[in-house]
Amino acid sequence: AMDGSPPPASPAGLSAFVAVSQLLGLTLLVTTGAWLGRYRGGVAWHSPLQFNAHPLCMVLGMVFLQGDALLVYRVFRHEAKRSTKALHALLHGLALVIALVGIIAVFESHRSKGIPNMYSLHSWCGMAAFVLYLLQWLLGCGFFLFPGASFSLRGQYKPQHIFFGIALFVLSIASCLLGITEMLLFKISDTYSHLVPEGVLANTLGVMLVAFGLVVGYVLTREEWKRPPLAEELALSMDFKTLTDGESPGGGS
Amino acid sequence: AMDGSPPPASPAGLSAFVAVSQLLGLTLLVTTGAWLGRYRGGVAWHSPLQFNAHPLCMVLGMVFLQGDALLVYRVFRHEAKRSTKALHALLHGLALVIALVGIIAVFESHRSKGIPNMYSLHSWCGMAAFVLYLLQWLLGCGFFLFPGASFSLRGQYKPQHIFFGIALFVLSIASCLLGITEMLLFKISDTYSHLVPEGVLANTLGVMLVAFGLVVGYVLTREEWKRPPLAEELALSMDFKTLTDGESPGGGS
Repeated sequence: AMDGSPPPASPAGLSAFVAVSQLLGLTLLVTTGAWLGRYRGGVAWHSPLQFNAHPLCMVLGMVFLQGDALLVYRVFRHEAKRSTKALHALLHGLALVIALVGIIAVFESHRSKGIPNMYSLHSWCGMAAFVLYLLQWLLGCGFFLFPGASFSLRGQYKPQHIFFGIALFVLSIASCLLGITEMLLFKISDTYSHLVPEGVLANTLGVMLVAFGLVVGYVLTREEWKRPPLAEELALSMDFKTLTDGESPGGGS
Repeated sequence: AMDGSPPPASPAGLSAFVAVSQLLGLTLLVTTGAWLGRYRGGVAWHSPLQFNAHPLCMVLGMVFLQGDALLVYRVFRHEAKRSTKALHALLHGLALVIALVGIIAVFESHRSKGIPNMYSLHSWCGMAAFVLYLLQWLLGCGFFLFPGASFSLRGQYKPQHIFFGIALFVLSIASCLLGITEMLLFKISDTYSHLVPEGVLANTLGVMLVAFGLVVGYVLTREEWKRPPLAEELALSMDFKTLTDGESPGGGS
Protein backbone atom coordinates (compact mmCIF):
# COMPACT_ATOMS: atom_id res chain seq x y z
CA ALA A 1 0.00 0.00 0.00
CA MET A 2 3.10 2.16 0.31
CA ASP A 3 3.58 2.49 -3.43
CA GLY A 4 0.20 3.67 -4.62
CA SER A 5 -1.64 0.32 -4.95
CA PRO A 6 -5.28 0.42 -3.78
CA PRO A 7 -5.91 0.45 0.01
CA PRO A 8 -6.18 -3.01 1.62
CA ALA A 9 -9.59 -4.67 1.51
CA SER A 10 -11.53 -4.66 4.77
CA PRO A 11 -10.25 -7.57 6.83
CA ALA A 12 -13.12 -10.03 6.45
CA GLY A 13 -12.44 -13.00 8.69
CA LEU A 14 -9.87 -11.23 10.87
CA SER A 15 -12.33 -10.70 13.73
CA ALA A 16 -13.40 -14.33 13.59
CA PHE A 17 -9.80 -15.57 13.73
CA VAL A 18 -8.98 -13.22 16.61
CA ALA A 19 -12.09 -14.41 18.49
CA VAL A 20 -11.04 -18.05 17.97
CA SER A 21 -7.52 -17.24 19.19
CA GLN A 22 -8.90 -15.70 22.40
CA LEU A 23 -11.25 -18.63 23.03
CA LEU A 24 -8.33 -21.01 22.49
CA GLY A 25 -6.10 -18.91 24.76
CA LEU A 26 -8.63 -18.94 27.59
CA THR A 27 -9.21 -22.67 27.09
CA LEU A 28 -5.43 -23.18 27.41
CA LEU A 29 -5.47 -21.49 30.81
CA VAL A 30 -8.55 -23.40 32.00
CA THR A 31 -7.11 -26.72 30.80
CA THR A 32 -3.76 -26.06 32.49
CA GLY A 33 -5.60 -25.15 35.69
CA ALA A 34 -7.81 -28.25 35.40
CA TRP A 35 -4.77 -30.52 34.93
CA LEU A 36 -2.95 -29.04 37.94
CA GLY A 37 -6.08 -28.78 40.08
CA ARG A 38 -7.61 -32.16 39.40
CA TYR A 39 -4.52 -34.37 39.00
CA ARG A 40 -1.56 -32.51 40.55
CA GLY A 41 -2.95 -31.20 43.86
CA GLY A 42 -3.42 -27.56 42.82
CA VAL A 43 -1.10 -24.57 42.99
CA ALA A 44 0.41 -22.90 46.08
CA TRP A 45 3.59 -20.87 46.55
CA HIS A 46 5.20 -21.80 49.90
CA SER A 47 4.47 -25.52 49.68
CA PRO A 48 5.42 -28.71 47.84
CA LEU A 49 2.92 -27.51 45.22
CA GLN A 50 5.14 -24.55 44.31
CA PHE A 51 6.31 -26.38 41.16
CA ASN A 52 2.76 -26.22 39.78
CA ALA A 53 2.99 -22.44 39.52
CA HIS A 54 5.57 -23.05 36.76
CA PRO A 55 3.34 -24.48 34.01
CA LEU A 56 0.52 -22.07 34.85
CA CYS A 57 2.77 -18.98 34.67
CA MET A 58 4.52 -20.14 31.51
CA VAL A 59 1.27 -20.83 29.61
CA LEU A 60 -0.16 -17.49 30.79
CA GLY A 61 2.97 -15.40 30.17
CA MET A 62 5.02 -17.03 27.42
CA VAL A 63 2.03 -18.21 25.36
CA PHE A 64 -1.25 -16.37 25.98
CA LEU A 65 0.07 -12.86 26.79
CA GLN A 66 2.98 -13.10 24.34
CA GLY A 67 0.55 -14.16 21.61
CA ASP A 68 -1.87 -11.34 22.44
CA ALA A 69 0.98 -8.81 22.46
CA LEU A 70 1.82 -9.92 18.90
CA LEU A 71 -1.82 -9.47 17.84
CA VAL A 72 -2.30 -5.85 18.97
CA TYR A 73 -1.25 -4.33 15.62
CA ARG A 74 -3.92 -6.44 13.91
CA VAL A 75 -6.68 -5.88 16.49
CA PHE A 76 -6.16 -2.14 17.04
CA ARG A 77 -5.43 -1.50 13.39
CA HIS A 78 -6.99 1.96 13.21
CA GLU A 79 -5.60 3.35 16.47
CA ALA A 80 -2.61 5.68 16.58
CA LYS A 81 0.63 3.75 16.15
CA ARG A 82 2.10 5.22 19.34
CA SER A 83 -0.66 3.87 21.63
CA THR A 84 -0.65 0.47 19.96
CA LYS A 85 3.12 0.28 20.35
CA ALA A 86 2.84 1.12 24.06
CA LEU A 87 0.25 -1.64 24.52
CA HIS A 88 2.49 -4.08 22.60
CA ALA A 89 5.44 -3.29 24.91
CA LEU A 90 3.25 -3.39 28.03
CA LEU A 91 1.76 -6.82 27.28
CA HIS A 92 5.21 -8.25 26.51
CA GLY A 93 6.51 -6.69 29.76
CA LEU A 94 3.67 -8.28 31.72
CA ALA A 95 4.37 -11.62 30.02
CA LEU A 96 8.05 -11.34 31.03
CA VAL A 97 7.20 -10.64 34.69
CA ILE A 98 4.77 -13.58 34.87
CA ALA A 99 7.28 -15.86 33.13
CA LEU A 100 9.95 -14.78 35.62
CA VAL A 101 7.64 -15.79 38.49
CA GLY A 102 7.16 -19.16 36.76
CA ILE A 103 10.94 -19.63 36.46
CA ILE A 104 11.49 -18.72 40.11
CA ALA A 105 8.82 -21.29 41.02
CA VAL A 106 10.68 -24.15 39.35
CA PHE A 107 14.12 -23.16 40.67
CA GLU A 108 12.83 -22.82 44.26
CA SER A 109 10.89 -26.07 43.99
CA HIS A 110 13.98 -27.89 42.65
CA ARG A 111 16.13 -26.46 45.45
CA SER A 112 13.72 -27.56 48.16
CA LYS A 113 13.58 -31.09 46.66
CA GLY A 114 17.28 -31.40 45.76
CA ILE A 115 16.60 -31.72 42.00
CA PRO A 116 19.32 -30.37 39.66
CA ASN A 117 18.51 -27.49 37.30
CA MET A 118 19.05 -26.91 33.59
CA TYR A 119 19.92 -30.42 32.46
CA SER A 120 16.97 -31.19 30.17
CA LEU A 121 16.18 -30.15 26.60
CA HIS A 122 13.02 -28.51 28.01
CA SER A 123 15.10 -26.34 30.34
CA TRP A 124 17.59 -25.43 27.59
CA CYS A 125 14.88 -24.46 25.09
CA GLY A 126 12.73 -22.73 27.70
CA MET A 127 15.59 -20.72 29.19
CA ALA A 128 16.81 -19.76 25.70
CA ALA A 129 13.28 -18.62 24.83
CA PHE A 130 13.01 -16.52 28.02
CA VAL A 131 16.45 -14.88 27.79
CA LEU A 132 16.10 -14.09 24.08
CA TYR A 133 12.54 -12.81 24.71
CA LEU A 134 13.87 -10.43 27.36
CA LEU A 135 16.62 -9.31 24.96
CA GLN A 136 14.09 -8.81 22.15
CA TRP A 137 11.93 -6.71 24.49
CA LEU A 138 14.88 -4.52 25.49
CA LEU A 139 15.92 -4.07 21.85
CA GLY A 140 12.32 -3.31 20.88
CA CYS A 141 12.04 -0.61 23.57
CA GLY A 142 15.42 0.82 22.55
CA PHE A 143 14.65 0.99 18.84
CA PHE A 144 10.95 1.80 18.73
CA LEU A 145 9.74 3.25 22.03
CA PHE A 146 12.45 5.67 23.06
CA PRO A 147 13.10 8.56 20.71
CA GLY A 148 16.81 7.90 20.15
CA ALA A 149 16.82 5.61 17.10
CA SER A 150 16.69 7.18 13.66
CA PHE A 151 13.87 6.54 11.22
CA SER A 152 16.11 4.52 8.90
CA LEU A 153 17.63 2.44 11.72
CA ARG A 154 14.09 1.55 12.85
CA GLY A 155 13.20 0.55 9.31
CA GLN A 156 16.21 -1.75 9.10
CA TYR A 157 15.59 -3.41 12.46
CA LYS A 158 11.83 -3.83 12.06
CA PRO A 159 11.83 -6.97 9.83
CA GLN A 160 14.32 -8.64 12.22
CA HIS A 161 12.13 -7.71 15.19
CA ILE A 162 9.09 -9.26 13.50
CA PHE A 163 10.89 -12.46 12.46
CA PHE A 164 12.45 -13.08 15.86
CA GLY A 165 9.23 -12.11 17.62
CA ILE A 166 7.32 -14.87 15.83
CA ALA A 167 10.26 -17.31 16.19
CA LEU A 168 10.41 -16.78 19.96
CA PHE A 169 6.64 -17.23 20.26
CA VAL A 170 6.99 -20.58 18.42
CA LEU A 171 9.98 -21.62 20.56
CA SER A 172 7.96 -20.76 23.69
CA ILE A 173 5.15 -23.06 22.58
CA ALA A 174 7.62 -25.85 21.70
CA SER A 175 9.14 -25.48 25.19
CA CYS A 176 5.67 -25.91 26.72
CA LEU A 177 5.16 -29.13 24.73
CA LEU A 178 8.51 -30.40 26.05
CA GLY A 179 7.47 -29.46 29.59
CA ILE A 180 4.18 -31.36 29.25
CA THR A 181 6.03 -34.46 28.00
CA GLU A 182 8.59 -34.26 30.84
CA MET A 183 5.92 -33.84 33.49
CA LEU A 184 3.86 -36.77 32.20
CA LEU A 185 6.91 -39.06 32.02
CA PHE A 186 7.96 -38.00 35.55
CA LYS A 187 4.51 -38.36 37.09
CA ILE A 188 2.53 -41.03 35.21
CA SER A 189 5.16 -43.02 33.30
CA ASP A 190 3.52 -46.28 34.48
CA THR A 191 0.07 -45.48 33.12
CA TYR A 192 0.65 -42.90 30.34
CA SER A 193 0.70 -45.61 27.66
CA HIS A 194 -2.79 -46.79 28.70
CA LEU A 195 -4.31 -43.46 27.65
CA VAL A 196 -5.38 -42.56 31.20
CA PRO A 197 -7.48 -39.39 31.53
CA GLU A 198 -4.57 -37.26 32.84
CA GLY A 199 -2.44 -38.22 29.84
CA VAL A 200 -5.21 -37.50 27.37
CA LEU A 201 -5.95 -34.15 29.06
CA ALA A 202 -2.30 -33.06 28.98
CA ASN A 203 -1.85 -34.25 25.36
CA THR A 204 -4.97 -32.26 24.47
CA LEU A 205 -3.44 -29.21 26.16
CA GLY A 206 -0.40 -29.73 23.91
CA VAL A 207 -2.56 -29.94 20.78
CA MET A 208 -4.39 -26.75 21.82
CA LEU A 209 -1.05 -24.98 22.34
CA VAL A 210 -0.15 -25.91 18.74
CA ALA A 211 -3.58 -24.72 17.55
CA PHE A 212 -3.16 -21.38 19.37
CA GLY A 213 0.23 -20.93 17.70
CA LEU A 214 -1.25 -21.75 14.29
CA VAL A 215 -4.17 -19.31 14.61
CA VAL A 216 -1.99 -16.46 15.93
CA GLY A 217 0.67 -17.19 13.29
CA TYR A 218 -1.95 -17.18 10.54
CA VAL A 219 -3.38 -13.83 11.67
CA LEU A 220 0.12 -12.30 11.90
CA THR A 221 1.40 -13.43 8.52
CA ARG A 222 -1.67 -12.94 6.33
CA GLU A 223 -0.76 -10.11 3.98
CA GLU A 224 -4.24 -8.55 3.71
CA TRP A 225 -4.59 -8.38 7.50
CA LYS A 226 -1.46 -6.33 8.14
CA ARG A 227 -2.01 -2.97 9.79
CA PRO A 228 -2.61 -0.31 7.12
CA PRO A 229 -0.64 2.90 7.76
CA LEU A 230 -2.85 5.81 8.89
CA ALA A 231 -3.11 8.80 6.55
CA GLU A 232 -0.68 10.90 8.60
CA GLU A 233 1.85 8.05 8.86
CA LEU A 234 1.64 7.59 5.11
CA ALA A 235 2.26 11.29 4.46
CA LEU A 236 5.23 11.24 6.83
CA SER A 237 6.76 8.14 5.27
CA MET A 238 6.22 9.52 1.75
CA ASP A 239 8.28 12.59 2.66
CA PHE A 240 10.84 10.26 4.15
CA LYS A 241 10.84 7.95 1.16
CA THR A 242 12.06 10.73 -1.10
CA LEU A 243 15.09 11.08 1.16
CA THR A 244 16.06 7.43 1.61
CA ASP A 245 14.06 5.25 -0.80
CA GLY A 246 14.10 2.66 1.99
CA GLU A 247 11.31 0.90 3.84
CA SER A 248 9.79 3.13 6.47
CA PRO A 249 8.74 2.11 9.97
CA GLY A 250 5.41 3.87 9.44
CA GLY A 251 4.21 1.06 7.15
CA GLY A 252 2.06 -1.90 8.06
CA SER A 253 3.73 -4.00 10.75
CA ALA B 1 8.16 -6.11 -7.79
CA MET B 2 4.85 -6.91 -9.46
CA ASP B 3 3.68 -3.32 -9.53
CA GLY B 4 6.58 -1.53 -11.15
CA SER B 5 8.84 -0.93 -8.13
CA PRO B 6 12.57 -1.44 -8.85
CA PRO B 7 13.83 -5.04 -9.18
CA PRO B 8 14.95 -6.68 -5.90
CA ALA B 9 18.52 -6.05 -4.78
CA SER B 10 20.96 -8.90 -5.36
CA PRO B 11 20.60 -11.30 -2.45
CA ALA B 12 23.76 -10.52 -0.48
CA GLY B 13 23.97 -12.94 2.39
CA LEU B 14 21.53 -15.47 0.94
CA SER B 15 24.31 -17.85 -0.17
CA ALA B 16 25.94 -17.66 3.26
CA PHE B 17 22.68 -18.44 5.03
CA VAL B 18 21.95 -21.34 2.68
CA ALA B 19 25.48 -22.70 3.23
CA VAL B 20 24.99 -22.50 7.02
CA SER B 21 21.64 -24.28 6.71
CA GLN B 22 23.25 -27.15 4.77
CA LEU B 23 26.14 -27.45 7.24
CA LEU B 24 23.63 -27.51 10.07
CA GLY B 25 21.48 -30.06 8.24
CA LEU B 26 24.40 -32.43 7.68
CA THR B 27 25.52 -31.95 11.30
CA LEU B 28 22.00 -32.93 12.40
CA LEU B 29 22.29 -36.22 10.52
CA VAL B 30 25.80 -36.93 11.82
CA THR B 31 24.77 -36.09 15.39
CA THR B 32 21.69 -38.31 15.19
CA GLY B 33 23.85 -41.12 13.80
CA ALA B 34 26.48 -40.58 16.49
CA TRP B 35 23.86 -40.71 19.25
CA LEU B 36 22.31 -43.92 17.92
CA GLY B 37 25.67 -45.50 17.03
CA ARG B 38 27.62 -44.66 20.14
CA TYR B 39 24.93 -44.87 22.84
CA ARG B 40 21.99 -46.84 21.40
CA GLY B 41 23.67 -49.82 19.69
CA GLY B 42 23.33 -48.60 16.09
CA VAL B 43 20.57 -49.05 13.52
CA ALA B 44 19.32 -52.29 11.95
CA TRP B 45 15.96 -53.25 10.44
CA HIS B 46 15.13 -56.86 11.41
CA SER B 47 16.44 -56.63 14.97
CA PRO B 48 15.73 -55.10 18.39
CA LEU B 49 17.53 -52.03 16.94
CA GLN B 50 14.72 -51.42 14.45
CA PHE B 51 13.39 -48.58 16.62
CA ASN B 52 16.58 -46.62 15.97
CA ALA B 53 15.66 -46.27 12.30
CA HIS B 54 12.81 -44.03 13.50
CA PRO B 55 14.78 -40.99 14.72
CA LEU B 56 17.23 -41.23 11.81
CA CYS B 57 14.50 -41.36 9.15
CA MET B 58 12.47 -38.56 10.77
CA VAL B 59 15.43 -36.17 11.05
CA LEU B 60 16.45 -36.97 7.45
CA GLY B 61 12.95 -36.84 5.93
CA MET B 62 10.79 -34.52 8.04
CA VAL B 63 13.55 -32.02 8.85
CA PHE B 64 16.52 -32.01 6.46
CA LEU B 65 14.77 -32.91 3.19
CA GLN B 66 11.58 -31.03 4.05
CA GLY B 67 13.69 -27.95 4.86
CA ASP B 68 15.68 -28.25 1.64
CA ALA B 69 12.49 -28.67 -0.39
CA LEU B 70 11.27 -25.35 1.06
CA LEU B 71 14.55 -23.65 0.09
CA VAL B 72 14.59 -24.57 -3.62
CA TYR B 73 12.77 -21.41 -4.74
CA ARG B 74 15.44 -19.31 -2.99
CA VAL B 75 18.44 -21.38 -4.16
CA PHE B 76 17.38 -21.88 -7.80
CA ARG B 77 15.98 -18.38 -8.06
CA HIS B 78 16.88 -17.82 -11.73
CA GLU B 79 15.81 -21.23 -13.08
CA ALA B 80 12.53 -21.75 -14.88
CA LYS B 81 9.64 -21.98 -12.43
CA ARG B 82 8.47 -25.31 -13.83
CA SER B 83 11.78 -27.15 -13.10
CA THR B 84 12.08 -25.62 -9.64
CA LYS B 85 8.51 -26.65 -8.88
CA ALA B 86 9.23 -30.23 -9.96
CA LEU B 87 12.31 -30.34 -7.69
CA HIS B 88 10.23 -28.92 -4.81
CA ALA B 89 7.61 -31.67 -5.25
CA LEU B 90 10.27 -34.37 -5.70
CA LEU B 91 12.17 -33.50 -2.52
CA HIS B 92 8.94 -33.38 -0.51
CA GLY B 93 7.95 -36.74 -2.03
CA LEU B 94 11.29 -38.26 -1.05
CA ALA B 95 10.91 -36.79 2.45
CA LEU B 96 7.46 -38.41 2.73
CA VAL B 97 8.75 -41.86 1.67
CA ILE B 98 11.64 -41.71 4.16
CA ALA B 99 9.31 -40.50 6.92
CA LEU B 100 6.95 -43.38 6.15
CA VAL B 101 9.84 -45.84 6.59
CA GLY B 102 10.59 -44.17 9.92
CA ILE B 103 6.96 -44.52 11.03
CA ILE B 104 6.86 -48.19 10.00
CA ALA B 105 10.05 -48.71 12.04
CA VAL B 106 8.46 -47.47 15.26
CA PHE B 107 5.15 -49.34 14.76
CA GLU B 108 6.95 -52.65 14.01
CA SER B 109 9.34 -52.14 16.90
CA HIS B 110 6.43 -51.42 19.28
CA ARG B 111 4.56 -54.50 18.05
CA SER B 112 7.55 -56.79 18.59
CA LYS B 113 8.05 -55.40 22.11
CA GLY B 114 4.36 -55.15 23.06
CA ILE B 115 4.46 -51.36 23.52
CA PRO B 116 1.19 -49.47 22.79
CA ASN B 117 1.10 -46.93 19.95
CA MET B 118 -0.12 -43.35 19.70
CA TYR B 119 -0.56 -42.51 23.39
CA SER B 120 2.05 -39.77 23.79
CA LEU B 121 2.05 -36.08 22.86
CA HIS B 122 5.07 -36.86 20.64
CA SER B 123 3.08 -39.44 18.69
CA TRP B 124 0.05 -37.13 18.38
CA CYS B 125 2.10 -34.17 17.13
CA GLY B 126 4.32 -36.32 14.92
CA MET B 127 1.43 -38.20 13.30
CA ALA B 128 -0.49 -34.96 12.77
CA ALA B 129 2.60 -33.45 11.13
CA PHE B 130 3.03 -36.48 8.82
CA VAL B 131 -0.64 -36.79 7.79
CA LEU B 132 -1.02 -33.04 7.18
CA TYR B 133 2.30 -33.01 5.31
CA LEU B 134 1.04 -35.77 3.01
CA LEU B 135 -2.21 -33.84 2.51
CA GLN B 136 -0.30 -30.63 1.79
CA TRP B 137 1.82 -32.49 -0.78
CA LEU B 138 -1.26 -33.91 -2.52
CA LEU B 139 -2.94 -30.48 -2.56
CA GLY B 140 0.27 -28.89 -3.85
CA CYS B 141 0.51 -31.40 -6.71
CA GLY B 142 -3.18 -30.92 -7.50
CA PHE B 143 -3.06 -27.13 -7.58
CA PHE B 144 0.38 -26.36 -8.97
CA LEU B 145 1.85 -29.34 -10.80
CA PHE B 146 -1.04 -30.73 -12.80
CA PRO B 147 -2.54 -28.44 -15.41
CA GLY B 148 -6.13 -28.54 -14.13
CA ALA B 149 -6.25 -25.64 -11.67
CA SER B 150 -6.96 -22.17 -13.02
CA PHE B 151 -4.50 -19.33 -12.71
CA SER B 152 -6.69 -17.48 -10.19
CA LEU B 153 -7.35 -20.59 -8.07
CA ARG B 154 -3.59 -21.14 -7.83
CA GLY B 155 -3.12 -17.53 -6.79
CA GLN B 156 -5.69 -17.91 -4.01
CA TYR B 157 -4.26 -21.17 -2.68
CA LYS B 158 -0.60 -20.15 -2.87
CA PRO B 159 -0.44 -18.04 0.35
CA GLN B 160 -2.18 -20.88 2.27
CA HIS B 161 0.28 -23.41 0.81
CA ILE B 162 3.21 -21.26 1.94
CA PHE B 163 1.84 -20.65 5.45
CA PHE B 164 0.97 -24.30 6.10
CA GLY B 165 4.24 -25.44 4.51
CA ILE B 166 6.26 -23.43 7.03
CA ALA B 167 3.91 -24.37 9.88
CA LEU B 168 4.27 -28.10 9.14
CA PHE B 169 8.06 -27.76 8.97
CA VAL B 170 8.00 -26.12 12.42
CA LEU B 171 5.62 -28.78 13.80
CA SER B 172 7.95 -31.49 12.44
CA ILE B 173 10.90 -29.98 14.32
CA ALA B 174 8.83 -29.65 17.51
CA SER B 175 7.86 -33.33 17.18
CA CYS B 176 11.57 -34.25 16.95
CA LEU B 177 12.28 -32.31 20.15
CA LEU B 178 9.46 -34.22 21.87
CA GLY B 179 10.88 -37.50 20.56
CA ILE B 180 14.36 -36.66 21.91
CA THR B 181 12.88 -35.84 25.34
CA GLU B 182 10.83 -39.07 25.39
CA MET B 183 13.79 -41.22 24.37
CA LEU B 184 16.09 -39.69 27.01
CA LEU B 185 13.50 -40.12 29.76
CA PHE B 186 12.86 -43.74 28.68
CA LYS B 187 16.54 -44.67 28.38
CA ILE B 188 18.60 -42.57 30.80
CA SER B 189 16.09 -41.20 33.31
CA ASP B 190 18.43 -42.17 36.17
CA THR B 191 21.42 -40.21 34.90
CA TYR B 192 19.96 -37.50 32.63
CA SER B 193 19.93 -34.96 35.47
CA HIS B 194 23.70 -35.42 35.99
CA LEU B 195 24.44 -34.00 32.53
CA VAL B 196 25.89 -37.29 31.25
CA PRO B 197 27.44 -37.17 27.74
CA GLU B 198 24.46 -38.88 26.06
CA GLY B 199 22.06 -36.34 27.56
CA VAL B 200 24.23 -33.39 26.53
CA LEU B 201 24.66 -34.82 23.01
CA ALA B 202 20.92 -35.34 22.55
CA ASN B 203 20.09 -31.89 24.00
CA THR B 204 22.62 -30.40 21.58
CA LEU B 205 20.89 -32.22 18.74
CA GLY B 206 17.66 -30.56 19.89
CA VAL B 207 19.28 -27.11 19.92
CA MET B 208 20.68 -27.72 16.42
CA LEU B 209 17.20 -28.73 15.19
CA VAL B 210 15.91 -25.38 16.48
CA ALA B 211 18.84 -23.58 14.82
CA PHE B 212 18.15 -25.34 11.49
CA GLY B 213 14.52 -24.26 11.71
CA LEU B 214 15.53 -20.67 12.48
CA VAL B 215 17.99 -20.40 9.59
CA VAL B 216 15.60 -21.99 7.06
CA GLY B 217 12.72 -19.87 8.39
CA TYR B 218 14.80 -16.70 8.11
CA VAL B 219 15.81 -17.46 4.50
CA LEU B 220 12.19 -18.24 3.57
CA THR B 221 10.58 -15.17 5.09
CA ARG B 222 13.13 -12.47 4.26
CA GLU B 223 11.38 -10.21 1.76
CA GLU B 224 14.46 -9.29 -0.33
CA TRP B 225 15.38 -12.96 -0.79
CA LYS B 226 12.08 -14.06 -2.33
CA ARG B 227 12.33 -15.48 -5.82
CA PRO B 228 12.01 -12.65 -8.37
CA PRO B 229 9.65 -13.50 -11.26
CA LEU B 230 11.47 -14.14 -14.55
CA ALA B 231 10.85 -11.69 -17.41
CA GLU B 232 8.44 -14.05 -19.20
CA GLU B 233 6.52 -14.85 -15.99
CA LEU B 234 6.20 -11.12 -15.34
CA ALA B 235 4.86 -10.47 -18.85
CA LEU B 236 2.35 -13.31 -18.45
CA SER B 237 1.14 -12.12 -15.07
CA MET B 238 0.86 -8.54 -16.32
CA ASP B 239 -1.51 -9.69 -19.05
CA PHE B 240 -3.36 -11.67 -16.45
CA LYS B 241 -3.48 -8.77 -13.98
CA THR B 242 -5.50 -6.68 -16.38
CA LEU B 243 -8.14 -9.43 -16.36
CA THR B 244 -8.39 -10.15 -12.63
CA ASP B 245 -6.45 -7.51 -10.66
CA GLY B 246 -5.62 -10.37 -8.29
CA GLU B 247 -2.33 -11.76 -7.10
CA SER B 248 -0.77 -14.03 -9.71
CA PRO B 249 1.00 -17.33 -9.14
CA GLY B 250 3.82 -16.13 -11.39
CA GLY B 251 5.12 -13.79 -8.68
CA GLY B 252 7.86 -14.44 -6.13
CA SER B 253 7.06 -17.49 -4.03
